[in-house]
Amino acid sequence: MGRDLSALFDPVSVAVVGASDDPAKYGHAIAAQAVRAGGRRPVHMVNRRGGTVLGRTVAPSLSAIGEPVDLAVVSVPAAGFEDAVDEALRCGARAIVAITAGFAETGEAGRTRQQAVAERVRAAGAVMVGPNCLGIADNTTDLFLASDTFTPGGVALLSQSGNLALELQLRFRPHGLGFSRFVSLGNQADVTLVDLLADCARHEGTRAIAVYAEDFGDGRAFAEAAADAGKPVVLLTAGRGDASARSAQSHTGALTTSADVVSAACRDAGVELVATPRELTVALAALGGGRRAAGDRVAVLTDGGGHGVVAADAVEAAGLAVPELREPTRRQLREALWEPSAVVNPVDLAGMGEQDPGSYAETVDALLAAEEVDAVLMTGYFGGYAAAGGGLGGGGAALAAGEQDAARLIAARHRATAKPIVVQSMYPESPSCRTLAAAGIPVFAATEDAARALAATAPVGRRTGVTPLPRPASPLRESGYLETRRALEEAGLAFPAAREVHDEAELHAVTEEFGGPYVLKALHLLHKSDAGGVALGLAGPGELLAAFREMRARLGASSYSVEAMADLTDGIELIVGVNRDPRFGPVAMVGLGGVLAEALHDVAFTLAPVSADRAETLLRGLRTAALLDGVRGKPPVDVVAAAKAVETITAFAAAHPEIAEIEVNPLLVRPDGVLALDSRAVLA
Amino acid sequence: MGRDLSALFDPVSVAVVGASDDPAKYGHAIAAQAVRAGGRRPVHMVNRRGGTVLGRTVAPSLSAIGEPVDLAVVSVPAAGFEDAVDEALRCGARAIVAITAGFAETGEAGRTRQQAVAERVRAAGAVMVGPNCLGIADNTTDLFLASDTFTPGGVALLSQSGNLALELQLRFRPHGLGFSRFVSLGNQADVTLVDLLADCARHEGTRAIAVYAEDFGDGRAFAEAAADAGKPVVLLTAGRGDASARSAQSHTGALTTSADVVSAACRDAGVELVATPRELTVALAALGGGRRAAGDRVAVLTDGGGHGVVAADAVEAAGLAVPELREPTRRQLREALWEPSAVVNPVDLAGMGEQDPGSYAETVDALLAAEEVDAVLMTGYFGGYAAAGGGLGGGGAALAAGEQDAARLIAARHRATAKPIVVQSMYPESPSCRTLAAAGIPVFAATEDAARALAATAPVGRRTGVTPLPRPASPLRESGYLETRRALEEAGLAFPAAREVHDEAELHAVTEEFGGPYVLKALHLLHKSDAGGVALGLAGPGELLAAFREMRARLGASSYSVEAMADLTDGIELIVGVNRDPRFGPVAMVGLGGVLAEALHDVAFTLAPVSADRAETLLRGLRTAALLDGVRGKPPVDVVAAAKAVETITAFAAAHPEIAEIEVNPLLVRPDGVLALDSRAVLA
Repeated sequence: MGRDLSALFDPVSVAVVGASDDPAKYGHAIAAQAVRAGGRRPVHMVNRRGGTVLGRTVAPSLSAIGEPVDLAVVSVPAAGFEDAVDEALRCGARAIVAITAGFAETGEAGRTRQQAVAERVRAAGAVMVGPNCLGIADNTTDLFLASDTFTPGGVALLSQSGNLALELQLRFRPHGLGFSRFVSLGNQADVTLVDLLADCARHEGTRAIAVYAEDFGDGRAFAEAAADAGKPVVLLTAGRGDASARSAQSHTGALTTSADVVSAACRDAGVELVATPRELTVALAALGGGRRAAGDRVAVLTDGGGHGVVAADAVEAAGLAVPELREPTRRQLREALWEPSAVVNPVDLAGMGEQDPGSYAETVDALLAAEEVDAVLMTGYFGGYAAAGGGLGGGGAALAAGEQDAARLIAARHRATAKPIVVQSMYPESPSCRTLAAAGIPVFAATEDAARALAATAPVGRRTGVTPLPRPASPLRESGYLETRRALEEAGLAFPAAREVHDEAELHAVTEEFGGPYVLKALHLLHKSDAGGVALGLAGPGELLAAFREMRARLGASSYSVEAMADLTDGIELIVGVNRDPRFGPVAMVGLGGVLAEALHDVAFTLAPVSADRAETLLRGLRTAALLDGVRGKPPVDVVAAAKAVETITAFAAAHPEIAEIEVNPLLVRPDGVLALDSRAVLA
Repeated sequence: MGRDLSALFDPVSVAVVGASDDPAKYGHAIAAQAVRAGGRRPVHMVNRRGGTVLGRTVAPSLSAIGEPVDLAVVSVPAAGFEDAVDEALRCGARAIVAITAGFAETGEAGRTRQQAVAERVRAAGAVMVGPNCLGIADNTTDLFLASDTFTPGGVALLSQSGNLALELQLRFRPHGLGFSRFVSLGNQADVTLVDLLADCARHEGTRAIAVYAEDFGDGRAFAEAAADAGKPVVLLTAGRGDASARSAQSHTGALTTSADVVSAACRDAGVELVATPRELTVALAALGGGRRAAGDRVAVLTDGGGHGVVAADAVEAAGLAVPELREPTRRQLREALWEPSAVVNPVDLAGMGEQDPGSYAETVDALLAAEEVDAVLMTGYFGGYAAAGGGLGGGGAALAAGEQDAARLIAARHRATAKPIVVQSMYPESPSCRTLAAAGIPVFAATEDAARALAATAPVGRRTGVTPLPRPASPLRESGYLETRRALEEAGLAFPAAREVHDEAELHAVTEEFGGPYVLKALHLLHKSDAGGVALGLAGPGELLAAFREMRARLGASSYSVEAMADLTDGIELIVGVNRDPRFGPVAMVGLGGVLAEALHDVAFTLAPVSADRAETLLRGLRTAALLDGVRGKPPVDVVAAAKAVETITAFAAAHPEIAEIEVNPLLVRPDGVLALDSRAVLA
């Protein structure tokens, strides 16, 4: 169920500890907001200096108020922070909003201090946001405990940056977006991003959740909570590049997670990952209505070819398709439109919109009705006639009215369909576009924004779910080559026959047991391949013995593995690994193996464990996936078996939290199955 | 020098043929604009129906005007187009602006008609823009012959789309950008994009040239003219995706060129290629001042960490670097800023901007002075204090004044440095940001725009020049394997020894001449490799003879090539090809060879011929370039020799216009040089 945050978002009473009448102080800004709530709940001002704040008498201490305080905002100097929190808990506070800064963000001593406070808060059965936060607001309960006013709306914003929240406020307005809640995350000493995400998921007044975070805390729990949220979650995060990772670390002291892992977790959890405030706004404008496209096929329409082709390119660049229209759709358009119109995709009215704005609506109708179309993008001039307001002369007024009629028809059609419609207009503020926007159709000024919006509604990379971690299995005690291999074999992964040998007698016994060609591996070497500790393709016992003698003389290793050499013909080598990320837990990597793939970094990431279905999707999404189907006359390899092997390896790793890293490389995939040719593990 | 377009852009007199008093007609819009010129030149109205237009008497024909007409705008129905043009030429017109539509865009018959007209125009020593164009304007000569008014400024816009020109007008305004000229390209029957580009390059009033084109006409000449323009050229084009290529073709009947080729030509010519009107505006805002960064290292500064890390990511995503600051810079910043400030890159003032806005200016100063910094990006709140205009209370007025002072200091610093400064602000319209913009510092609302602007000023992929085509060599008469091979060998490309054989006696003679291992190739097969017409690694005469007999029996080919098998150890296979594009002429492709590379499409394009230097840059830019330096203990290969071979092959192809396609595949690059192992050519 998650933690009960009701005292945080709808307290019975509030006290601002550190309230001030000096407009330059943050304690003033918070106090001024807090009193906006009106009669919903008592709001007390507390400052050890007494006096008045905003004309209200200030209590010198919380206990001096004389009645219980449900939520205390603490905005006092760091030296007095612990005392203020302790007093609040004594006075019965169930929630603390800790503005005071100077804790984990300043170093280890600060982290220790905030942890001690958080423990006392939890022991008292209370919750605390911060410290080092800018406050919270809940427009659904008239709770205003941050320095800014947030326009009411359906978006809950959980942010680690105050200025980005400000920018989002500015960006939301033209799209009719507003806020249900705002929480400045601060240092998350007690209440975490995950707690807040889970609570906002349950919150009726919240339709979508926007997150700006540099530190995910428990990333795995974040992904699970987002996957279960039941409403859109959009994440703005930095740290994809070298510099921002460096900086985020110095800024919040946060453990940063590689961009690959964050992307994978977001894709798994169905979180829309964005890189800028603008992109976040576009995604929310698209997802706010809750509409999702059934596929990625977009029909584009315009009047005047330029915008159509530019938009078609933008849509394809956003990862969607702009398919050819089928004959029934073309026929319908050919009947509705005039002769110069291009009834391909993008549809170009070719001037008909200027003769008869109703042709826009007819075209949208036909495209929405088309089976081959999952979403519609209207782009270009639409809005211009109404924007000119009849000022174009010569029939301008009629055109403006006709365009408004068309907007109403499109709005009605939008209500009657589940397919997304998105509009790019040169005149997004025109009455016609306002009519569209009022009907819930996102309208953008920029082509790339409209394309990005469609991508947010499309199922491309749509959530695949986050598989819960299995119960830990009995831990591996050693991570030697043979131990790891044996454990994976027991888990169901196929390896070629192998025997450990220490001397020539044992070697001889193996050659009696199975025939060549052989592989000989020296054991207990860190990188046996690089160290020359692997000999491949030893045709028979003689070559094997020679290799054994040579290796023993050169490397001095005391034990060796003799293995049956697999038939590499028509095989493809994959690499499958699982690393344990401090935030996101076991993260799987699958990719093409071999030298070239290493140079290319052609790998995909996902949270482990990975189902076979999911693994197959990932393998088929590799840049070099064409090789799996056989090229230049080679037969296709057994991708299903490869995917099953990925499932086996990742499930094993997920059940072994003591393994920091495990890798099967190469995993040989042949037309008739898979064989793991080598593996290694590192214990945490 | 290019064509003389003076009569087009600064005619002595103008006549609007097809002028109308009906506001719904285009001939009215043009007439209304034309008369805005005031006293600069006579403007005549012509319409066979006579009457008045805008209160002016209309001449029933051009000849009825009774004085020579220098430029005639022809906006009559298609049926009367030829007569109108012929009359204009008879009346001494040196320039025609042909609005009339219904020619090449409607099919082959229309193309033939417009060609005939264009020939008569040229024969008369005149020039014609269009047909099927929307008109032209030149703000530097008060010439207004399009339906819209264009705000004066330094950008010449050459556009194949009227609506996109409208959108650009709207987008230019907030950036203080305006137009020197506007030309609607139409069908380019006579005056082409290239003519106009060359003329705008010479035009004093034009500081930058913006092009929207779907059809480049002579793409090679476009690239050459752009490379020689001496001012920024920004190209918006569509057709990168499948749908837009399909549509552009149906829309203008244009030959479309692959996106790879257009990108390569733009990079070679130093043309800034953009995908949307918004991106075009951003690039012009950045390039308008003529500032270029010396390198790609950007310093980011902000007050409040979120914007800094988001911007740093955006800068890196745009292909630039956000390097660590060196110790002298950090020391300087540590002295200038307060303790909480992060003096890394991105620099975070961490609240100091709110105490002392002058800290922004000091930080910009230090960053501009840093050797390790080529450009500066300021991002976030800056502008907010002045935007609030002292309304923040408590020192708000002082903050606003301080921010304005900081803006003035930054503006002064900008004038004193050659390094670009770009600003992203939540308050781009604030007085402080206006101060920056007035000083020529581009200010954007969106982070990604600021990053894109910096990329436009950076040398990443900066022009490499367009090498002129060589004089054609004596043409190849046959494109058989041996003929092509011989020609390339004569051009200086190294091949293994090879002899043509027809029978076993000749085969035997070859084995006396050089030893094995051998390669045997059947000749005159289209894809000899796929057809089983190539046998590799034939150890000696015996194996060679057996292969010969087998191949002859199976394929029945009458002639064969016996070649010395190259030593493939430690070699890397490249593919080098040249295709003749109908628009851009010979286009070279270099890439990694082999099956994997084919699956990856890891290739680079450039206009041929290609210098060895340029070829080396392209090879080192491949995704798999790491292989060239040797991986897993392999020695590096001879990239210099490979680059020289690319020069040889592409120079050969460029000198042979009769070759439609030529490919050397594989070009074996070893640590000690290169060998061409196979080649093929297709004559046009």
